[in-house]
Amino acid sequence: MELNDEHYMREALKEAVKAFEADEVPIGAVVVANGRIIARAHNLTERLTDVTAHAEMQAITAAANAVGGKYLTDCTMYVTVEPCIMCGGALGWSQIGRIVYGAGDNRRGYSRLQAAILHPKTEIVSGILREECESLMKTFFEGKRG
Amino acid sequence: MELNDEHYMREALKEAVKAFEADEVPIGAVVVANGRIIARAHNLTERLTDVTAHAEMQAITAAANAVGGKYLTDCTMYVTVEPCIMCGGALGWSQIGRIVYGAGDNRRGYSRLQAAILHPKTEIVSGILREECESLMKTFFEGKRG
Repeated sequence: MELNDEHYMREALKEAVKAFEADEVPIGAVVVANGRIIARAHNLTERLTDVTAHAEMQAITAAANAVGGKYLTDCTMYVTVEPCIMCGGALGWSQIGRIVYGAGDNRRGYSRLQAAILHPKTEIVSGILREECESLMKTFFEGKRG
Repeated sequence: MELNDEHYMREALKEAVKAFEADEVPIGAVVVANGRIIARAHNLTERLTDVTAHAEMQAITAAANAVGGKYLTDCTMYVTVEPCIMCGGALGWSQIGRIVYGAGDNRRGYSRLQAAILHPKTEIVSGILREECESLMKTFFEGKRG
């Protein structure tokens, strides 16, 4: 865990809160390169009526625009919840350098299959602000059941 | 295999040829609902500088727009090459009713992991116009090596 991981995860959490407030599954992501946030996004599947509009997918597209290239080799993605298989696949194609996620996802997370979905050179960190990330998800789905 | 599978796969192949002509990895897709093509797309990862711009991803987004909802339960996707893990994940989220693909992809195809990436209710058909679909890919990559 690097010194600033919590700082950037808080930024990802801010994005997740925006999703929460819009009644979207509350997941947020930021992409960081050279200490600078070059992309931020939150889940918009409901508003866009598009199952592909996960925070990570939008953040990958925005980050590629920012760096002017398809590959995110020198970037870190901070995402509040473990990427799903679709996003894991997309992150694999992006060759992203590092992924930091907060809460795990035993049901839909990419790692329930195989870490090999991602690019072999990508470093993975989990558990940053895990409780806050989990808690936001829990609160959201409790609200749905209530 | 249904009677019209070849017909629609030819439409997907037309899309793949457009990608080929634009020097993109030549994969094309169409989405069919009630016998009507509601979305067509080809790979645009180079032009858009975006690893997420696979034919299937764009076709899912376009099809959701066409049906006015996130889920493609009553749709069939025809795609010239087996979807990758990202696209498999996206198709899983879309709950698409049926997938028909031409060429398999032993290296990047979703099925090298687990069919469970897709939605359990999705019917899968492969091998429609396999040779043509494979041949287009082969020609493209031979051109790259030449």
